[in-house]
Formats: sequence, structure tokens, C-alpha cells
Amino acid sequence: EKWKKGSRLLSALVGSNILLFSSTLVTCVFATDADIWETDMLIFLCIVMVICMSWMVFQIYFSWKNKNAILHTDCQAGPIWMRGGIILFGAGTLIMTVLRIVHASDYLGCETPMKLVYSVIQSGFVVVQTYFLWVSCKHCVQIYMNATRCGLMVLLSINLTLWLIAVTEESGYHAIEIERYLEGNVTQNHTTPAEGPSPRSHNCSCKSICKFIPTEYYYLYPFNIEYNLFASAMIYIMWKNVGRRIDDNDSHHYGLGPGVRKHIPLFGLFLGMAELVTGLVMFILYEVGKTNTVKYTLSLTTFYFFHVVSLGLMSIANLVGIIFFQLDKRSMDNEKNPSRTLDMALLVGATMAQYGLSYYSIIAMVASTPFTLLSSLTLVCSLLTIIQHSLQNVFIIEGLHRLPPSHLVTSRTRKDAPKKAQLPSDTQKVDSQETGSPHSVPAAPDHPPDRRMSRRATLTAQLKSHLKKRKTLKDIYLFLFLSNLIFWIMPAFGARIMFDTGLEVEFYGFTLWTVITNMCLPFGIFYRMHAAASLLELYSIS
Amino acid sequence: EKWKKGSRLLSALVGSNILLFSSTLVTCVFATDADIWETDMLIFLCIVMVICMSWMVFQIYFSWKNKNAILHTDCQAGPIWMRGGIILFGAGTLIMTVLRIVHASDYLGCETPMKLVYSVIQSGFVVVQTYFLWVSCKHCVQIYMNATRCGLMVLLSINLTLWLIAVTEESGYHAIEIERYLEGNVTQNHTTPAEGPSPRSHNCSCKSICKFIPTEYYYLYPFNIEYNLFASAMIYIMWKNVGRRIDDNDSHHYGLGPGVRKHIPLFGLFLGMAELVTGLVMFILYEVGKTNTVKYTLSLTTFYFFHVVSLGLMSIANLVGIIFFQLDKRSMDNEKNPSRTLDMALLVGATMAQYGLSYYSIIAMVASTPFTLLSSLTLVCSLLTIIQHSLQNVFIIEGLHRLPPSHLVTSRTRKDAPKKAQLPSDTQKVDSQETGSPHSVPAAPDHPPDRRMSRRATLTAQLKSHLKKRKTLKDIYLFLFLSNLIFWIMPAFGARIMFDTGLEVEFYGFTLWTVITNMCLPFGIFYRMHAAASLLELYSIS
Repeated sequence: EKWKKGSRLLSALVGSNILLFSSTLVTCVFATDADIWETDMLIFLCIVMVICMSWMVFQIYFSWKNKNAILHTDCQAGPIWMRGGIILFGAGTLIMTVLRIVHASDYLGCETPMKLVYSVIQSGFVVVQTYFLWVSCKHCVQIYMNATRCGLMVLLSINLTLWLIAVTEESGYHAIEIERYLEGNVTQNHTTPAEGPSPRSHNCSCKSICKFIPTEYYYLYPFNIEYNLFASAMIYIMWKNVGRRIDDNDSHHYGLGPGVRKHIPLFGLFLGMAELVTGLVMFILYEVGKTNTVKYTLSLTTFYFFHVVSLGLMSIANLVGIIFFQLDKRSMDNEKNPSRTLDMALLVGATMAQYGLSYYSIIAMVASTPFTLLSSLTLVCSLLTIIQHSLQNVFIIEGLHRLPPSHLVTSRTRKDAPKKAQLPSDTQKVDSQETGSPHSVPAAPDHPPDRRMSRRATLTAQLKSHLKKRKTLKDIYLFLFLSNLIFWIMPAFGARIMFDTGLEVEFYGFTLWTVITNMCLPFGIFYRMHAAASLLELYSIS
Repeated sequence: EKWKKGSRLLSALVGSNILLFSSTLVTCVFATDADIWETDMLIFLCIVMVICMSWMVFQIYFSWKNKNAILHTDCQAGPIWMRGGIILFGAGTLIMTVLRIVHASDYLGCETPMKLVYSVIQSGFVVVQTYFLWVSCKHCVQIYMNATRCGLMVLLSINLTLWLIAVTEESGYHAIEIERYLEGNVTQNHTTPAEGPSPRSHNCSCKSICKFIPTEYYYLYPFNIEYNLFASAMIYIMWKNVGRRIDDNDSHHYGLGPGVRKHIPLFGLFLGMAELVTGLVMFILYEVGKTNTVKYTLSLTTFYFFHVVSLGLMSIANLVGIIFFQLDKRSMDNEKNPSRTLDMALLVGATMAQYGLSYYSIIAMVASTPFTLLSSLTLVCSLLTIIQHSLQNVFIIEGLHRLPPSHLVTSRTRKDAPKKAQLPSDTQKVDSQETGSPHSVPAAPDHPPDRRMSRRATLTAQLKSHLKKRKTLKDIYLFLFLSNLIFWIMPAFGARIMFDTGLEVEFYGFTLWTVITNMCLPFGIFYRMHAAASLLELYSIS
């Protein structure tokens, strides 16, 4: 085998240089309010996007033309929910860019025309990239490997840069909104004027930044952010798979398996939907209550209560799931799987940000002196967040590593295995022989009928017990999926409760707390979406 | 094989929680100037250190008592230069803590007694940890694996926290010093007063923080910082090795091989020593020149010229090394090696920080209008830094993956292989048979004498050519080792040239530039030390 680390290192260096250069440009633009810098950044981004678009077109053309280009595909990469997600979020991003084009052509006289060009190019980029990822996310490219690695890394860098820009714009928008709110709020007035002048400069005195954060398409930002992250994850997996040779027999079939259709976990669905609907109602009440100072404390307290109860329920569900895993001993899948490794790394990495935020909150709550109801609710909420994240990570990662339960009957995992497992009378036709599996087969297929009966009875009992557990696990998966979804919706669409009590702001000061929140919260939001996606995957393969 | 990821995940969650909690405490202490917080942080750190010390003592005792505890050792972990480094830096840290104890007992009346307790416990911790790492850094622990993993992770967290504290204290000290200098400098006066008040609060108005940064043992900080990083790297390798079963026959012997004694690369030594001495002289002139405003611009320009010339030479050396690697085709070592993977990750990760700093510098230089000699020097220096880091990473990582050249003669890598390679008449006794190697053997040992002679002649010619290349490579390794050492010494002991020209400070403002520098520079300094260590390893095994 050729040494592929050298080529990987080269492409990683190219990609990281582009990423760091554009990140420095972005921070320069958002830290110092020079109009000329924004135009420069937009020109640079346009050039990189055009390069990426032409590379993607070439790549699609060459892999279509050259029959040896794609000899292997990685079945675990790009499952259907991820490709569906990228279509959904891509559509949101496309609507956003179209709105931006309209906006930029409105303001063409008083703004740089680069914004129009940038938005047009970005919309083209989104279309080409979505098509490219849909077509080739499973490919293990075997031609022009160095060029492919570099191209993918440049694409990854530009996606991360676009993510950074979106997050920064959204945070800036929130900072302005919260500051306005705090200024209007008389009781909090003594904390804000003492702080540094940096958030104030985002006010509309400076034209360029203010126009860059238009309010009308504000609710589409979460889609844009998730689109870039999903695309980055898929591109990274493609990069890892360049030059990989996979034994096609050895592949598990991921995706929405038949299990989804066979059994509907009503309990999980009911509980999850109840939480989702309650959360949405709470969220709307809270957003509406912001304008009314009298109702505000009530709606905030209720909102915190909802958080505490939901997080408690989710922790219990995670704990039950972990206990089920401990009871139901199965062999673990230790095979190489870049998608799963990335999932694990992203889940654990994103958790760190949420841990940090929670610990900052806890320290502030413990230290601030009048210990009110809101402080205790914040404290409990932060503690539960830490517990829930830890338990959920253990649960999801253990779940991702478990072989499907059909492993008990057939040693080879098949797409139709869950169907067989539900009809134990069919398990006689064990197909381990035809696939040539090296694993040990618990149920030997050539036994005489009398012995086979007792064996089958044991197997049936085991399977029934397993199916029951799987049903409960499905309930848990579905409940946790819906819960994580509502916990993604609330902060992604604007509920920043850690600002609204004013307790942390008072303790850390507005600037420091804004910096902490803006650094941690995007990863926390990403965690929820990613956990929801992983739970959906677990649900579909269980 | 048992699924070890679950246990790893558990310990990682425990460790990351401790790390994040202590990091939030540290930022709280250094951001808000409350005296009570520092005492709380010290109490927390003392408790964790005492727990770690008792765990280490138990671990040493149990692995000494239980014969089954250490069945395998990882020969690649903890090479002699790393263990030597931990002794050296540990001694520096110990001197520093002793000085701190003296300092704290002097100020016992006006300061919290926790400082004394903390320093005493820290000195004990350093002694126990250094002994623990010296004894057991190669161990692959097989008993109480969950407890061992958790213990190691807690130890890793506390080391990273101590590193964070040391870096923060040192940066604070530098910020005060540079601010004082800029205040005294009349020409720069218009930039500093406009900036935020946050660095000013570090002035001696606040007692607790100021006493925490005593000046007399300031030059020992780099030792303390490197000690914690070296310890962290060794602990991480131990953690990865818990429960690992290594085939002992398969191990390469790292460490100061006999090659070091056989050939002294005079050219590399001469050039490297010249650079080291010039660098030290320049550094002292620059530090002395700081007080004299007339000589200052001259010494600064000379210092920059030295940087540019050295970085250029190092880039050329790296490039020559990479070309040599391309000419000298050898099979690459793709075996699992946690130490090497960590080395790669740390090198590439730390490079990112240096890239970021350089790009910020480049943007500032391109944008600031009067393009003076100093601006162009800064620009060239930043560009060369990026190029040199990229080339050096490729060079070191490719070097770490190459099998030793003795692979041509004997298929098995041995500690005494270089000795044999230098005496080709001994190569007849090829010992591939006795070790039972599965590799292909290029020189078959049982040929008749006449055919063996011609084979031997070819081998000798090949070996001579290889040895020549290896000699040149040794020159390159030694030169780069000494160069990286001087580039570690200069910033670690206080040369922050990116502040002294005042160009970046003018562009970004003092606060933002301090934040950027304080975040990036510690990793840049770490990169230099780590690159030097890796080059020493390459030198010793080449």
C-alpha cells in the first residue's frame, strides 16, 4: 500500500492555510469597521468559490467519464437522512441568497456591487455543491488522488469559512438585539454602561456592517449554518475515503431500514411530540413575552421549568438506554468506519463547548449573592445539561458501535436482516455459508430437525426478548430525537435564555459573557442537530 | 478483543469535565479580580493534585506488586530524550516552586496562606509525577483498566490546567511589561490610551493578581510550561497504551542509537552552532537595546534580519531534506504507533496557531499605509514563517514514517543495525531467519559465495550512497534541531517582536492584538520545542 499520509498532509496544509487566511480576514472585517476590508473579503471568497465550483464540475465530469475513477463506494458515508438534510438546508440557504440578491440590488446605489456578485456566486455555489455531494458523497475516488484531496480540502475550508461568517453575523445580530433589550430594561441598566464600547460599535452608525445583517431573512440563518456544517462533514468523509479500497461484501447497509416501517414506537412518539409541541408553545410564549415586562418573569420562569423537566426526562431516557445496552450483551463493531469516527469526534468535541458554557453559568450562580428562584433554576438547568450531554454521548456512541441484533441469527448483517428477525421461522436459511463469513455462527444450519427445534425455541425466546428491548430502544431513540430537535430549534431560532435572566451578564459583564456565549453556543446548537441526526440513524438501523 | 472505546469515552468525559471546570475557574480568576476566587481555585487545584499524587503512589505500588500488571511495554513511548527532558524541566519547575514557597512565606502576613500550601503541594506533585513518568511511561497497564484510564485522564487535566495557569501568568506579565514600554515610548502614545481598559487592570492597583506574578523567577516559566506539556504528552501516550497488547518481537528500538556516536555531522553542527550563538547574541542585544531608544530601531532591524536569514536557511534545509527523501525511496512504516500519531497531531495542530499569527501580521502589513523597511521585514518574516512551518512539518512527518535504512540489508530493524550497515562485510549474517520475519528479504543469505560477492558489491554501493545521504540528512537534522532550539529560546524567554515594532498594535489596537498573540504564541513556542524534540529523535534513529 502506498503511503497516503504524505498526500493527506499536503492537502491538509493547503486547506488549513486557506481556512486560516479567510478566518483572519473575517475577524478583521468584524473587528475593525473598515468598508474596504469587506469588499476584499468578498472578492477573495468569490474567487475561492468560483475555483471550487469549476473543480466540482471537472470532478463530476471526470468521474463520469473515467470508468476506473470510482471502483468502490463507502456505503456508510452519506446516509439518506444526511443527503436529505443537505437538500433541505440547501433549499433554505438558496432562499436566503435569493433574498440577499434582491436586497443587494435594492441597495445597489449606496453599497458595494460586490455584495450582489457575492450573493449570485454563492447561490450558484450552493446549487453545484449540493448536486456534487448528492452524486458523489459515497465515492472512494481512485484517480488524480492528490488533486482530489486538495480540492476537497479547499472546499472544506470555504464551507467552514462560510459557516464562520454566518455564525458571526448571527451572533452580531443577537448581540445588538440583546443590548437593545438590556438598555430598554431599567432594572439591568447599571450593568451595561460600565462595559467596554466594542458591542456598541455594531450599532447602525457604521453602514457596512449594519447592511450586512439584514433582518428580514434572519430566520433562515440556522438553515445556512447547518447546511455548511453538513456539507463540511460529508466533504471530510469523502476526503478520508479518497484512495480507499473497500471490500464490498463487508459493507453494512445504513439508511432508513425496513425496521422503521415495521414498528411504530407509540410511547416514544407520543412523549416526544408532547415535548416538541410544549417546547414550541413555550418558545413562542417566551418570544412574545419579551416585549411585555410584566409577563416576562413568568414566561422566563416557565421556560426554565420546561428546560429542567425536559432535560431530566432526557437524562432518564439516556440512562435507561445505557442500562438496556448493558443487559443486552452483543458483540461490538470495531471495524474501520470514517463516518462513525467523525460522528464520535464531533459529538464529543461539540459537548466540550456546552460543558464550558454550563460551568461558567454554574460558577456565576454559586457566586452571585441573592440566591433567587431564577438562580437555582439556572443552576439546576446547567447541571442537568452537563449530565444529559455526558449520558447522551455514552448512549449514542455505544449505540453506533453495536452490531444489529440480527447478528445473533445470521452472522452477516444484511439490509433485510430486521425483517428476518421478526419472522424467526425463516431463520433456518442462515446465509452465512453463501457469504463466506469468517465469524463464528451461533446457530449451525445443518443440524437434524429434532435438535433444531429446541435450538429454534431458545432462539425464538431470545429474539422475542431482544425485539422487546429493541422496541423500547426505538421508543427511546424517537423520544430523544424529537427532544434534541426542539432543543436545536429553541436556541437556533433565537432563544438565548442565558442572557435574559441577566444573572450571568451581571457577574461577568456584557462583553465577556457575549464572547463566551458566542464562542460556545454555535457548537452547542450544532451538538443538538448532530445528536438528532445520529439518533435518527440509530433509530433506522435498530 | 473487548470494546475499549466505552472505557476510553468514560475517562475522557471525566477528564474533560475536570479540565473545563478548572479552565472556567482560571478564566474567572484572571478576568475578574476577586481575591476570594483565587483562594477557591487554589483549594480546588490542591485537592485534585493530592488525589493525583495518591493515585500515582497506588499505581506504582500495584504495578510493582502485581506481576500481571505490566505484561507488555511500548518501546516507542517515552524515548530517552523525552524522559531526560522531563527531568530537566521538572528540575526547573521544582526550583520555581521552591522560590515560590520562599516568596509566599515572606508575604505570609498580607497574602492568603493557601499560596504557601499550594506551592508546597505543587512541589510534591512535581516530584511524584516525574518519578511516576520515569518509571512507568512505557507501561501498557493490564489491571484495573477503567480506574487507570480515569486516573490518567485526571492527571492529564490537571497538567493542562497548570499549563494554562503558567501561560496566563506569563502572558499577563508580558502584557504589563509591553504596556509600560509603550506608555514610555512617546511615538506610540496615540494608540494606547484609546483602547479598552482591560489590560490596565493588571497594574499593581490590585494586590492579589500582582503578587501572583513575581518577577524574580520569571525566567523559569518556560521550564514550567514545557514540563506540563511534556508530562501531558507522556500521560496521553500511557492512556492510549492502557490495555494494549504488543507483539514484543515487532518493536523498533527508539532512543539515542549508536548512529549518534559513529558519525558527527560537522557541517550541520557548525552552521547550527553559528546560528545558535548569533541568535543568543542578537537576543541579548535586543533585550539590552530595549532600554535605549536610540539604538532600539537598529537592534530591532538587525533582529528582524536575523529572523529572515535564519528562516530562509531553515526552509532551504527542509526543502533539501524533502528532496533527499524523494530520491531515497524506502518503504514507509504504516504500523500503529500512538506516540507518532500524537507527534503528528501536535505538530500540525500547533502550526495552525503560528499560521494564524502570521496571517494576522501579513494583513496588517499589507493594509498599513507607509510601507517602511520594518513593515517589509515583518511581511517577509511572516511569509517565511508560514513556508518554513509547512516544509518542516512535511519533512519531520515523512522522516518519522520512514523505516531505518538498515531495512535494505536486514529485514528486521534492530538497535545495532546502523553499526552493521557501516561494516558491510558483516552483513552476511543476516538474522532474518532467527527472528522469523514475515517481510521479504532482499539479500538472501544462503547463496553460493561467487554470486554473493556480486550481490554484496551492489549492496555496498547502495549502502555507500545511502550512508552519504544519511550523513547529509544528519547534518540537516542537527542544523534544524539547533535552529528550532534558538527559535524556542527567543520567544520563550521574552522576545515578542510582534509587539515591538508597534505596527500590528497600531492596526489592531492593543487589546485585540494582545488577545491574538496570547492565544497563538504559546502554541507557536510549543511547536518549536516539539519540532526540536522530533528532530533529535530523527537524528538519533537515522
